[in-house]
Order: sequence, then structure tokens, then C-alpha cells
Amino acid sequence: MSRNRVVYFVKRPDGMVTNDAFAIREEPMPILSDAESVIIESVYASVDPYMRGRMSNRKSYTAPFQVGQPMQGGMVGRIYDPGRTDLAKGAWVFGVWPWAEYAQVKAQTVRPLAPGTPPTASLHVLGLTGLTAYIGLTQFGRSVTGEQLVVSAAAGSVGSLAGQIGKILGLRVVGIAGGPEKCAWLVDRLGFDAAVDYRHENFPANLKNAVPDGVDVYFDNVGGTVTDCVMAELNLHARVVICGQISLYNLDSPADERPRFADLLISRAQATGFIVGDHQALYPEALEHLSVWYREGRLVAEETLVDGFDQLIDAFIGLFQGANRGKAIVKLREETGADDDSCGGASTPSA
Amino acid sequence: MSRNRVVYFVKRPDGMVTNDAFAIREEPMPILSDAESVIIESVYASVDPYMRGRMSNRKSYTAPFQVGQPMQGGMVGRIYDPGRTDLAKGAWVFGVWPWAEYAQVKAQTVRPLAPGTPPTASLHVLGLTGLTAYIGLTQFGRSVTGEQLVVSAAAGSVGSLAGQIGKILGLRVVGIAGGPEKCAWLVDRLGFDAAVDYRHENFPANLKNAVPDGVDVYFDNVGGTVTDCVMAELNLHARVVICGQISLYNLDSPADERPRFADLLISRAQATGFIVGDHQALYPEALEHLSVWYREGRLVAEETLVDGFDQLIDAFIGLFQGANRGKAIVKLREETGADDDSCGGASTPSA
Repeated sequence: MSRNRVVYFVKRPDGMVTNDAFAIREEPMPILSDAESVIIESVYASVDPYMRGRMSNRKSYTAPFQVGQPMQGGMVGRIYDPGRTDLAKGAWVFGVWPWAEYAQVKAQTVRPLAPGTPPTASLHVLGLTGLTAYIGLTQFGRSVTGEQLVVSAAAGSVGSLAGQIGKILGLRVVGIAGGPEKCAWLVDRLGFDAAVDYRHENFPANLKNAVPDGVDVYFDNVGGTVTDCVMAELNLHARVVICGQISLYNLDSPADERPRFADLLISRAQATGFIVGDHQALYPEALEHLSVWYREGRLVAEETLVDGFDQLIDAFIGLFQGANRGKAIVKLREETGADDDSCGGASTPSA
Repeated sequence: MSRNRVVYFVKRPDGMVTNDAFAIREEPMPILSDAESVIIESVYASVDPYMRGRMSNRKSYTAPFQVGQPMQGGMVGRIYDPGRTDLAKGAWVFGVWPWAEYAQVKAQTVRPLAPGTPPTASLHVLGLTGLTAYIGLTQFGRSVTGEQLVVSAAAGSVGSLAGQIGKILGLRVVGIAGGPEKCAWLVDRLGFDAAVDYRHENFPANLKNAVPDGVDVYFDNVGGTVTDCVMAELNLHARVVICGQISLYNLDSPADERPRFADLLISRAQATGFIVGDHQALYPEALEHLSVWYREGRLVAEETLVDGFDQLIDAFIGLFQGANRGKAIVKLREETGADDDSCGGASTPSA
């Protein structure tokens, strides 16, 4: 019986990732093979730019994906078969598992959803995305009320939260995004002080005009020429938070860039690359702030939700074309599963 | 009467600095114009790579030199005419004043030499050079005993001290320098654990072999392709101290470089540009350590001493051709001046 679909990684991309890097395969349903595992019915999948890095076979901050193995990432789902664990059938959980309709997962690697929140929040404002924005800005941006913050990929998942957190912390916030619609959204909906369209031919001059008092903190998600322009506006002792370099992930060979260390020297500035997983000790404090701000409506948790398991690959590729506003999430199936006694937000604590 | 010689900055260089950027002019002796100034007879002049940055009319960490004005920099000399100040005729002082045989200088801007040290030490191990090496390594390198330090321009003034301080602090130290002689000197004379010749065709592989345990701290004086190679060897949470970027100072247009922020992200590393003048609160502590280590013979304060006022320009240009080993200093005249009752190291405190 073939009734499970799985997305496999089948070919390392050269340059821009395309569909032929993946294959969707029909397989038999997974069978529980040990007493510590459960079968999960996947409901939501997070697609994230960092995954492109794992598709290249070179040193990166996470181990490369292996060709011939399933893709995997942040997922939300419900317990389909709890096996011999104490998880309840139908309970909502989140964690990292394969891009599959059904997956066998170690029970100890999944977590219940935060009570009273929609399931996708755990992939987003109350998950690694929110933690990345909060910890990056506070720990490495070390911003002080009244300072000037610039965020690149500001309409993206981490960027949109980083900018909003900056506003909550009393900074003047300028976002960089692609196209007038996203820019208008940053200002009108998220409360950014200004937004600059990097696709506009006058981008460098427009950016300069948008930061008349320079840049104290630059939260960088993109790298490349956008970052070159921001570096020219750094104030003395500025901090650059290197969260992502999405403009480079699909390049085969290194990009030509301006001498960024010279920029850091001129401004006596500091640039720090970080990944959120190194800072788990800060998660409780961060989640407390994020939860309060989210409940109070001070953080808009925008999502670009795409429907259908067969949309996973296109949604992922779309990240590099600016298709998403806020967090890109793929809804793999309806929330109402076979066992419906547990609704979104309710859950059984894991062991 | 024309008996004073002064080096003027007469033309901003395009690309590599050449002699025609300067003019040596004969002038009348300076005449004291106020009660706070003295006339100093210059004895030693420091030539430093950062001065090239000041010759370009662009944003840098120090104000540009003005065309038509004298060059100026770190100097050591003796009081030729104390005027109405309480400085003693013949007293040794150091400070910043023009590249001139005689200069009128505000008395409060000069300092006496450290007692019992040769005059040039104040331009070197006990001056801004030593302070830069110490503060850069301890404050921004944040190195811990047993870590791996790489220093570029390791045979230069700051680099040779940074590497030696690294050894004193218990690091494994690898120097990068130009040519086998300098490399041998780093290991045999200064006690570096290894040295790699960046001019060698196998430099990238040789560097990799020299740092089998990777790089925890990179003290960068050069930038460019040398730095590209070191960045590929960074360990997790490495620190890059951006002290100088000498390979870029004579470039007209930005260099093509590897994406360094991506390197920082991959290694979750931090890069900090700094200039020593921002950290004057640390000078007393730093000078205490430097003085003790220097007196005990644990810091070799190598100097490349060039003789003669008319060698100033060539000595400066030579910095960018790797001509110096250790600190480049120009001896403008013999130490024994007209008034000889005050010898090197003795001095009268300034007001």
C-alpha cells in the first residue's frame, strides 16, 4: 500500500535551486520500529532560506543534507500513532522531521504547542524565527533606545519580526524590501519608520535619505550589494548582526563585494555571525517577551500560507524570489485529522 | 635664513602612493607665536600605514590630510626653545607634529619619554604600536590560553608585537609575512610557533597546514586575499580583530573579495574594527604590562631604522612594499643636540 508521500533531496543544485533537486516519492506508511518513537501526521511545514545552505556540500553552519535522503525542517503535526509512548493520539506537536505526510519521529524530539496559540506560531513568532529575531537584535545588536536600526529582507520572516521588536525597544527602524507593496506594508501595517525598495534604481540614494542619522545596528539577512550600501552608512561603533546572507546562497562562486572589513575598520564597528541554536539558554526569556508582545497584538505574525503537500518545493524555491511576506509556511493537510478530540493549541506534554 | 626643512603633502595619490605626493621645502625657522608653545628639534619620525588612509579624501577613521599642509605623525624630539613654558631646553618629548626638522608645538600636546627607555620606544613598544597590539588582542581577540592565533603582517610593527603578546598569553601563534627571511625571523627570533609566507605560490595550502586546529583569533593587519584564506580556517565563535587593511590602502577601487560576512555567519564568528585612540582608559594597564615584558626581554622591539630627513618619504612608501621588519622609524638627526645636558630617557615633565 503506497499512501505516504515524501520529498527527497536527489541532486545538489548548481547555482539557483530548481525543482530537479527534489523528487516526491510515494511510499508505504512508516511502521513503528522502536518503543521511543511515534508516527506523526504532518500538518504544517516551515520552508526556510537556511535550508539552501544545507543543500550544498560545503562547510556551513549546519551539516549538509545528504543526497538520497528526505528533506527535513521545522514541522507541526498531530500524533497519528503514539506507539508505546505516553503521547496522546491527536495531540499537536512541533519539531524537526522529514518533509513527509507521515513520519516516524523520536517522541523526545517533539514538543507540545504553546497553549492557546495557533499551530503555526510554533514555526514562527513563538519558534525559531521569533527567537532568531529577538536574540539577534538584543544579544548582538545591543541596541539602545533611540538608535537607528536597519533591517534587510525586512518583509521576510525574521526581518519583519526584528523590525517590530526594534520598534518595541524604542529604535528608529528602516526596512529594506523588494517592491513598493512590501515597503508600504512595512510602514503602514508593521509601523516601521521608513522602508526602502532595493529593486528601485535609486536604491543607494534612497537608502541614504532614509537614514539621515546613519545606522547604529544593521540586522542583515541578505548580504550582497544591499549590504554593501548599508555598510557605507554605518555610524561609529555600529553593530552588524549577520543573521543570513540569502542573496549569496544560490551563488556558485563567491560574489564580488566591497571590502567590508575596511568598512568595519573605518567605523570601528563590529559584525557578528550567529545562529540561534547556540543560545538556547536565552530561549525562556525571549519566549516570555515574544509571547506577551504577540498576545498584546504588538507583534504582527504575518504568514504566507501555501496549500498542499505538492506545493512544498515551489514554496521553498519561492523564498529566493521574494514570493513570501512574513513567514512562508506550507499547509500540508486540513487541521481536522482522523482523531479530532484534540484541537489546535491543546496538547499532551511529552515525556 | 632658510634652515628648516618640512615635508608637505602636495597631491592626493591615485592608487599606489609615490614620491610626487610630497614635496620637501626649505623654510625659515619657526618663530614662537604664543606663550603655550615650544619649538622642538625633531629627532625620530614614525612612518605608519594608517597615514595612507589620511591621504585619500574619503571617509576613514581619521580626518584626511589637507593638500598643501605638512605631513604629520608620531615624532620624538628635544625641546629647542621652551619659550615661556616650563619645559626644559634639551628635554626629550614625544607627540604628534609635522614632518619638519623644527616645529612649533603646543607644550600640552607633548609628553616626556618613559624613564630609562630609548627614545624610539615611545613610537613603538611603549607607544601607540604596543598599545594597539595589546588592546586589540586582549579587548577584541578575547583570547584564552591554548587558543590558536593568526597574525597577518606579522613581521610589521603591530603584528610582531601582537604575536609576541599572544605567546606571552599562552596562545599558539602563527604569523603571516612576506618572504622566507621574515618567516624565519618570526619563528627563530620572536618565538612564533609557525610562520607562513604569503608570497609563496602554495600559500593557501601552507596556511591550512600551519593551523591544523583552525583559527580562534585572527589579528588582521592586511585584508585582501591573505585575509580571504584565513577566513576559510576560522573555528566556531572565532574573533577577528580588524586592526588594519594595508593591502587595500593603495587601491583606487574596491577589491574583489570573498563574501566575508558569509564566513562570519558560517563560523558564528565576530569581527571588530577598532582604533586604539577609542580606548585610552585602557592605556595605563596596557603600558604597565608592556613595560614589564619589554624590560624583562620578553618583547623584542624590532626596528627598521632609516637615517636622514630626506629618507622620510621613501621610508613611508616602503611600508607598502614590505621594506620594514618591525617598526619603521626615520632618524632625522643624531641624538646629541646643541644642548646636551639631557640624555635619552631623562626628561622634564610637561605642565
